[in-house]
Amino acid sequence: MAEKITPRGTDYSKWYQDVVKNAGLAENSDVHGCMVIKPHGYAIWEKMQQALDRMFKATGHVNAYFPLFIPKRFLEKEAEHVEGFAKECAVVTHSRLIAGPDGKGLIPDPAAKLGEELIIRPTSETIIWNTYRNWIQSWRDLPILINQWANVVRWEMRTRLFLRTAEFLWQEGHTAHANQAEAEEEAKKILEVYRTFAEDWMAMPVLTGPKSDGQKFPGAIYTLCIEAMMQDKKALQAGTSHFLGQNFAKAFDVTFQSREGKLEHAWATSWGVSTRLIGGLIMTHSDDQGLVLPPRLAPIHVAIVPIYRKEEEKTAVIEACHKLAAGIRGIAPDPWLHYEPISVKVDDREQYQPGYKFNEWEVKGVPIRVELGPKDLAQNACVLARRDVPGKEGKIMGVPLASAPERIAAILKEMQTGLMEKARSFRDANLKTVDSYDDFKAQIDSPGGFFLAHWDGTRETEDRIKNETAATIRCIPSHLPAEPGKCMVTGQPSKQRVVFALSY
Amino acid sequence: MAEKITPRGTDYSKWYQDVVKNAGLAENSDVHGCMVIKPHGYAIWEKMQQALDRMFKATGHVNAYFPLFIPKRFLEKEAEHVEGFAKECAVVTHSRLIAGPDGKGLIPDPAAKLGEELIIRPTSETIIWNTYRNWIQSWRDLPILINQWANVVRWEMRTRLFLRTAEFLWQEGHTAHANQAEAEEEAKKILEVYRTFAEDWMAMPVLTGPKSDGQKFPGAIYTLCIEAMMQDKKALQAGTSHFLGQNFAKAFDVTFQSREGKLEHAWATSWGVSTRLIGGLIMTHSDDQGLVLPPRLAPIHVAIVPIYRKEEEKTAVIEACHKLAAGIRGIAPDPWLHYEPISVKVDDREQYQPGYKFNEWEVKGVPIRVELGPKDLAQNACVLARRDVPGKEGKIMGVPLASAPERIAAILKEMQTGLMEKARSFRDANLKTVDSYDDFKAQIDSPGGFFLAHWDGTRETEDRIKNETAATIRCIPSHLPAEPGKCMVTGQPSKQRVVFALSY
Repeated sequence: MAEKITPRGTDYSKWYQDVVKNAGLAENSDVHGCMVIKPHGYAIWEKMQQALDRMFKATGHVNAYFPLFIPKRFLEKEAEHVEGFAKECAVVTHSRLIAGPDGKGLIPDPAAKLGEELIIRPTSETIIWNTYRNWIQSWRDLPILINQWANVVRWEMRTRLFLRTAEFLWQEGHTAHANQAEAEEEAKKILEVYRTFAEDWMAMPVLTGPKSDGQKFPGAIYTLCIEAMMQDKKALQAGTSHFLGQNFAKAFDVTFQSREGKLEHAWATSWGVSTRLIGGLIMTHSDDQGLVLPPRLAPIHVAIVPIYRKEEEKTAVIEACHKLAAGIRGIAPDPWLHYEPISVKVDDREQYQPGYKFNEWEVKGVPIRVELGPKDLAQNACVLARRDVPGKEGKIMGVPLASAPERIAAILKEMQTGLMEKARSFRDANLKTVDSYDDFKAQIDSPGGFFLAHWDGTRETEDRIKNETAATIRCIPSHLPAEPGKCMVTGQPSKQRVVFALSY
Repeated sequence: MAEKITPRGTDYSKWYQDVVKNAGLAENSDVHGCMVIKPHGYAIWEKMQQALDRMFKATGHVNAYFPLFIPKRFLEKEAEHVEGFAKECAVVTHSRLIAGPDGKGLIPDPAAKLGEELIIRPTSETIIWNTYRNWIQSWRDLPILINQWANVVRWEMRTRLFLRTAEFLWQEGHTAHANQAEAEEEAKKILEVYRTFAEDWMAMPVLTGPKSDGQKFPGAIYTLCIEAMMQDKKALQAGTSHFLGQNFAKAFDVTFQSREGKLEHAWATSWGVSTRLIGGLIMTHSDDQGLVLPPRLAPIHVAIVPIYRKEEEKTAVIEACHKLAAGIRGIAPDPWLHYEPISVKVDDREQYQPGYKFNEWEVKGVPIRVELGPKDLAQNACVLARRDVPGKEGKIMGVPLASAPERIAAILKEMQTGLMEKARSFRDANLKTVDSYDDFKAQIDSPGGFFLAHWDGTRETEDRIKNETAATIRCIPSHLPAEPGKCMVTGQPSKQRVVFALSY
């Protein structure tokens, strides 16, 4: 099975592919830019969905579902929006295939050519705001707080599993409000949901703040984002929350009678995270042995591998494994895991040796592996191996079977915190302040990192830096006080430092 | 708000539309044949998904995700399959829009015409079996037990909310096995999952059994189905489980080394249920007042409506409502509801009167409404209104607040059973045995129903009956012993009675 994983130091990009492949997370399909999300990868996505969905609902949102297809005329209605998406979209032009003129193979039936082309949704603002027009008449109909779990398509030419694919899975929230303040509040609230999810669930520290105008969503007034640092010190935009003002309400003529009896356009937000998060999760924690998962998002928390040579050892060992599994599952439900039992797999597959199994659970990122053989059983004990501590140091010998479940529950919590601390230390160690453009240019490729620098606020300077160094403004960080200074490139006044980095 | 609902007796089809509209379940979009699933409708789908997903996982299945797009050449590989789906499919031909020659509006960019057309999946056998080719080498790789939750598109011309839409949501299972017996076992196992879900969750009784060859899935050896009777006595195919033999393994060259070292083609099943189930749910239980939901699939179980006139009554009444809600939520978790708390909504909206609220919860099918006003409070009591018992008879006056939570929990269970019994009685009362074709023709339109009749087993007779009466063979029922007889049309020998009905 598992081929060797290329070390990060040798070829980071190859390492990423190897981790994805060996952990059985996803693979490229025969369809341009589309991936197959394999069961282990999809199980991680399900854990993410569950946690996020609970958070959306706890903040008053409900789910709904809108059409996959966007009529071309809808896309055309918001000028920036169409500019942003028309260049890379899948266009449906026919509704039937018929036998070709040579009798072999099928062709689109010319008689079934659509009167108007349909676009596979790259995002759903247009179709949703076209629907909201009929839902919103009065201030009493507001706010509308809707989320959608869906697939979307953006025809990317260069794709990378999870990080950039032509089709991806995501959630997109689309809210409508009676006034600007409430809509802006919503955009901020969701940013905080995303930050909490990234840090508390993914153990992935993020910087938050608005994007520069050059990086905002096509059609937004402004875009807030969470931005994470990967192990190669590049930035990953992990989630965005847009304040859309009245742009889409105006484009789709969505008006309502206000409390004061005036006809007004509704205010909007939209926000989303996608399967890209799985790429971020991988690149935040994984190591040269494969995937490392924070326990709160691990589909399986504990893999128990029975070890036996002789047939007469087998029964007792396997029985002890199942008993231990039951004990672990019986640990009192914890809000930390949303009252779900700890997930345990007894790996009693006959066709594989223990060494093969150890390796499989390691590359798959299962947080704790338990080894249990006749010698352990004789001492009523087992061996625990922590995935977050590589090699022998991660092995805990002679753990009494009676106390193993409590010990495992404690280690899982510790591991979640530990992974977050490790990722935060790494990020902080590579978050640098820089004041001269020469310094910046000397460091951006290597050693790399996030660079806090002053910028004059112009698109021109932003573009120049991008053209000369490939770095972009990742966000205007909200954790820093707005201390004025001088742009590192032009020397013009700057309101505050912004974060530059190379990015995915 | 709610417009009047057309009574079933006046116009059944209009009644269905009215129920869907007034309950806020779904609406037509501006895109051909595609619906918007509104929050209340989507919440029901989520309940269905959760219950089914748990059942799939409990029977060893895992989820994964495959591309939305099917290359045209994949569709062409299985002859019956392409015949079944090519006539109504969405065809993607371009990957970019550019400004049209007149400078106004967008057109598909001729330079971005795809080398090969892509079809939006109408079902995923082809793309999945193309993927399985790389996953299956040895008997050790089998079985593969995968399910996918996804959207699919079939370009239907005449659509009806939930029942027949161009895009719909569904789950599709695709399994691969080392031998025929195991694959057939799987197809049967899933049929039983579907039957259990339909009866125990939806409270919708179903007949089960194979379809006739004329009604099977394009590409299957045979199709098993669950078939339900709606209130207009028409049949609804509610779920199908297909034994595909080696058809797709042969079309996509999926072979494996057997235990005995021989190279063999894998055996397949596929199976699915869709948002069509929501249509079935509506038409099984709802009445002239609107939606009726079996409690196990109700997003909200209890709506508490506070009643007060004066401001000084308000505080005490609303406080009592919230206290009661907490008491109901605190009922010990029941496996019957998968250990989730009973879902309660205190409807304290200020802008609506109690009468408006009563009506809203009624049309939305909330199983129990609680009314609580100053007079009730003075007696430490409340009024319960059961959605399954129309009018005054469904009202239970003077229920002590202290015991109301237990009483509500008991009524919910009773209601689930009661709805199932009522639906079963109706179905059984309209399941008739018929021996002459004249009798059959005299009854099929009116009074209608399911007709158990002998059939000679030929496609010719099946087609004749369909042409002459519009009735089709819904299934070869597995609950009946295979008693031979004579075909009602031709007098030729028949192995057993089959079920004829008009259908959706």
